Amino acid sequence: MVNETQHTCSVSSSSRSDGGSSSGSESSKDNSRCSTPVLDADRHERLREKMRRRQDAGDKWFSLEFFPPRTANAAVNLISRFDRMGAGGPLFIDVTWHPAGDPGSDKETSSMIIANTAVNYCGLETILHMTCCNQTKDDITGHLQKAKRLGLKNIMALRGDPTGEEWEEEVDGFNYAVDLVKHIRNEFDDYFDICVAGYPKGHPEAESYEADLRHLKEKVFAGADFIITQLFFRPETFLKFMKDCQAIGITCPIIPGIFPIQGYHSLRQLVKLSKLEVPQEIKDVIEPIKDNDAAIRNYGVELAVSMCQELLDSGMVHGLHFYTLNREVATTEVLKRLGIWKEDPRRPLPWAVSAHPKRRVEDVRPIFWASRPKSYIYRTQEWDDFPNGRWGNSSSPAFGELKDYYLFYLKSKSPREELLKMWGEELTGEESVFEVFTCYITGEPNRNGHKVTCMPWNDDPLATETNLLKDQLEKVNRRGILTINSQPNINGKPSTDPIVGWGPSGGYVFQKAYLEFFTSSEIVTALLKVLKKYELRVNYHIVNVKGQNITNAPDLQPNAVTWGIFPGREIIQPTVVDPVSFLYWKDEAFALWIEQWAKLYEEESPSRMIIQYIHDNYYLVNLVDNDFPLENCLWQVVEDTFELLN
Amino acid sequence: MVNETQHTCSVSSSSRSDGGSSSGSESSKDNSRCSTPVLDADRHERLREKMRRRQDAGDKWFSLEFFPPRTANAAVNLISRFDRMGAGGPLFIDVTWHPAGDPGSDKETSSMIIANTAVNYCGLETILHMTCCNQTKDDITGHLQKAKRLGLKNIMALRGDPTGEEWEEEVDGFNYAVDLVKHIRNEFDDYFDICVAGYPKGHPEAESYEADLRHLKEKVFAGADFIITQLFFRPETFLKFMKDCQAIGITCPIIPGIFPIQGYHSLRQLVKLSKLEVPQEIKDVIEPIKDNDAAIRNYGVELAVSMCQELLDSGMVHGLHFYTLNREVATTEVLKRLGIWKEDPRRPLPWAVSAHPKRRVEDVRPIFWASRPKSYIYRTQEWDDFPNGRWGNSSSPAFGELKDYYLFYLKSKSPREELLKMWGEELTGEESVFEVFTCYITGEPNRNGHKVTCMPWNDDPLATETNLLKDQLEKVNRRGILTINSQPNINGKPSTDPIVGWGPSGGYVFQKAYLEFFTSSEIVTALLKVLKKYELRVNYHIVNVKGQNITNAPDLQPNAVTWGIFPGREIIQPTVVDPVSFLYWKDEAFALWIEQWAKLYEEESPSRMIIQYIHDNYYLVNLVDNDFPLENCLWQVVEDTFELLN
Repeated sequence: MVNETQHTCSVSSSSRSDGGSSSGSESSKDNSRCSTPVLDADRHERLREKMRRRQDAGDKWFSLEFFPPRTANAAVNLISRFDRMGAGGPLFIDVTWHPAGDPGSDKETSSMIIANTAVNYCGLETILHMTCCNQTKDDITGHLQKAKRLGLKNIMALRGDPTGEEWEEEVDGFNYAVDLVKHIRNEFDDYFDICVAGYPKGHPEAESYEADLRHLKEKVFAGADFIITQLFFRPETFLKFMKDCQAIGITCPIIPGIFPIQGYHSLRQLVKLSKLEVPQEIKDVIEPIKDNDAAIRNYGVELAVSMCQELLDSGMVHGLHFYTLNREVATTEVLKRLGIWKEDPRRPLPWAVSAHPKRRVEDVRPIFWASRPKSYIYRTQEWDDFPNGRWGNSSSPAFGELKDYYLFYLKSKSPREELLKMWGEELTGEESVFEVFTCYITGEPNRNGHKVTCMPWNDDPLATETNLLKDQLEKVNRRGILTINSQPNINGKPSTDPIVGWGPSGGYVFQKAYLEFFTSSEIVTALLKVLKKYELRVNYHIVNVKGQNITNAPDLQPNAVTWGIFPGREIIQPTVVDPVSFLYWKDEAFALWIEQWAKLYEEESPSRMIIQYIHDNYYLVNLVDNDFPLENCLWQVVEDTFELLN
Repeated sequence: MVNETQHTCSVSSSSRSDGGSSSGSESSKDNSRCSTPVLDADRHERLREKMRRRQDAGDKWFSLEFFPPRTANAAVNLISRFDRMGAGGPLFIDVTWHPAGDPGSDKETSSMIIANTAVNYCGLETILHMTCCNQTKDDITGHLQKAKRLGLKNIMALRGDPTGEEWEEEVDGFNYAVDLVKHIRNEFDDYFDICVAGYPKGHPEAESYEADLRHLKEKVFAGADFIITQLFFRPETFLKFMKDCQAIGITCPIIPGIFPIQGYHSLRQLVKLSKLEVPQEIKDVIEPIKDNDAAIRNYGVELAVSMCQELLDSGMVHGLHFYTLNREVATTEVLKRLGIWKEDPRRPLPWAVSAHPKRRVEDVRPIFWASRPKSYIYRTQEWDDFPNGRWGNSSSPAFGELKDYYLFYLKSKSPREELLKMWGEELTGEESVFEVFTCYITGEPNRNGHKVTCMPWNDDPLATETNLLKDQLEKVNRRGILTINSQPNINGKPSTDPIVGWGPSGGYVFQKAYLEFFTSSEIVTALLKVLKKYELRVNYHIVNVKGQNITNAPDLQPNAVTWGIFPGREIIQPTVVDPVSFLYWKDEAFALWIEQWAKLYEEESPSRMIIQYIHDNYYLVNLVDNDFPLENCLWQVVEDTFELLN
């Protein structure tokens, strides 16, 4: 009677040997007792498994292709684009490889570093392209090792365009993509997922369409996991290609490359490079409107939507790959019209996760970097293990230092003139600083009519959750409690709550109230007297730039301030207030006063000296109200402090 | 202004080197990110540190001395006594060493094994005595290595009584306790805390009182951490001894040995062995009442209370060591009258912790062994690491097997005749088994007028917490849902709650409702249909003795069912329902039907065949209601199941 029912698991204590388990999944291999509960299957699967799972579930998906930027500023913009387009839920993005552009270097604009940023800082599953022709085995191995070290797990293996007029095959060299596929499998076994290119019209240099199909089959049989195709203009081109592939025994996923026409010139250039011919019916529409960018883009969107729809309707296509040309509008519109752009407001954890495989189990972070997640990832990139389950009372978390590279990726996105408008062309005293903080909280324009949309400690506008505390925050900032981080207490809201929810549905989330601010030593003196009354209820940690340090944290233990209870899982506690990490954060928080704010002004100028004074004399304070089921008492603590001062 | 206030911690990120920390505490040495939050400082300190902390806090304490039992039955009784007297909060217990009794062997009654039980199964800080005279260096080292392996951390180093009439010093041999102290320090460095004996009247064999003091000083300077004295009859004897010790430079703690007179003969024997003289004023009282045990014991208690009071009032004494002679009543009464017997109903964790140093960080266990904690400790004794923070989804927890040794320590404390009275001299069908379960729950006598105070799966009467569910449990047991473990849901009660609270004060504890029972395959079939309605809310796991196994646990992940939130700490989740461990528990739970119940009856007898039938055909089921803030739905699940059956 029992066998016919439900999900039956095969583990049995009597048939189990001591050594290992029969399950082949990756996560069962590491036998750590502290492995993370699988909150989010995506974090634990490799790309080809995700693809298979989505296909099995009948779930349509998309992916996005970008090329590396030319300048550092363009890189900053591209990374913001990753964040915005990442919100639509691409299965992966890929970054192209141009041998002439030093793609494997450490430059801010190299393919390698852009892909690294996408994976580690933006949390996106990423494929790095790599070409092999005209390169030595050592160079290629070096690139692959570096990619692996950076946490990249997927390679698009390409031949690349030969340089020089008279290219000839090298004996034992890398002449074709298949050589690269074999090399990757030889040297790196199954570590990478490998993608190869397919040509629905045949590669322009191939002897024939049939010969090209045979080359593709060789690439797949050499170890490629899936195929992305060159662009094409008619759905039937792709569908025929797919059937032909299947007919000769290619069974891996084949993903159509979609190119929404976005302008006359970009189309012409792409066509030239790819040696494709634009069908007459498309030329007929475009030629007359070639100077009207908007019209061409509208047409391109229409065309792409109808082609994609036809592909999806065929039942043979489960995912669509978009050649974005690093632009957002057209692709996003196509995806939205197809209904496969899926902004999921639900967060797997309260903070944005990174896609580096080392961080797969990471599920707890200090709260301090809540508004600077990229900085946190940067400063912990050298860690071999990431905390999961517990933060623990490690006395030496060894945060990385604040270096140049860090400043590039993590610096404010706004230019100097913008910042001066927001934070004041000229400061007249500490009160003008209070005003900047207050305007950031309220969203009201400052005295010169400019809104303050970011602060050195917060790259983005105020979080929705912080809005819950807006009135109280405004009041205290006006009086010199300069808040940089806070959260309300939450006593068991559903995990699907649109503001404070996170994790799978059916759970409950909790928070302890948190408040972090800079303030003067006068206020700190009064605050410490007030805190005596709250000794058992409030944990505090107060420190100045010189490292004077006052806390009532028992044995320097971390305090969990966010946690969630989910069906069938262990407790997740993704955010802690850790007194040891706080001292590393303190260095960063104080440095931001100088690096991002003081340096806007001339040396020796009064404005600069005001910020310098605050940097030298203020304290950084954090407060936690442990009694999460009661009304948040931290506002009363601050109120009592002001009262004592008067 | 800041330096003058509060607890100031010395850690500073700028002054910190990468390698280690300046803190000397043990817990900072292991750099694990998963170390346990210090819920209970006691678990993390060694004995000499606990002693110092109690002294610094002005906290009076006591300790208890026992000798090893002669028979296996006496051992079972002694272990229950450890549990009962352990409830009063001794700082430690110690177990004496009698070379003639094979004290280092693996026998159930050896000093080594009794001390092992006290540490590992009863969770008591324990000192093992060890004598050295007439023993080889190898023997002694072997004993010490074994003690270390078993988790013993404290040794009382003694000479022991020479055997044979004409004892002579051996060159390079172990002639005095000081030789043993030196040996321990040479071979085991600082691993053990070492205690030595002091003689307030001088050792009977010493040349003089002064010479004996000098010997004592040698022992301390050789590495002893503290001194326990021989018994004495007048407080001034001890106080003079203590001053004399201090005068010659002995500064370690000196703990007076207290001997409450419990009977005429035991006093005479002890005096003979210790070569002490009983003061005339005591003799005068005792001689006339020598045949009245109760009167002597009353007098002994009076005498001990007044002597102890005088010692404590002197301000020189912080702890009292009791020679219990393995008896409970007199010592317990003295301690209660002194007000230092402190039954603390607060539990550090919901389950009884073990004192083995390897288990120091352990803070999570599967719920299944809740009523059989000693069995759990036994079956996990070979583990190198104990889970803390998370149980994790280890696929191979490698529980030890069910062997003889295990059966001795963990078998029911009641004799066969008792069990037959409770569980039925003769069973007439499955219903008579239902009745036994029901009587255990209700506390009502069975049809033969006997109360059922234990079950094969529960050594003790029902937990207070289970009483909360009594009515529902009664109802379902009557109908063949044979419950062996359960807990109500709790949504944030104070950690000081007398029934469900645990951990430090100021916290909140939570539970998911849990129900575990044996039941027939007919009921399981109906239950599975009902559970479909509750799929998202209730996790279930159903298994029979052959290992047929049905569960909806996602990826065989553990489900946390008890957790606590405390001020300034990470989340503690001490109890999980782990689907993998459940299969090990299943083997034990089914085996108990046969080993403890069926075997009470003759082979082939109808009673035995009824139990055998249940063992072969019933299922073991566990259910968790994940929606802890709502009313427990598990009773409704059972109700629905019965309805479906009708």
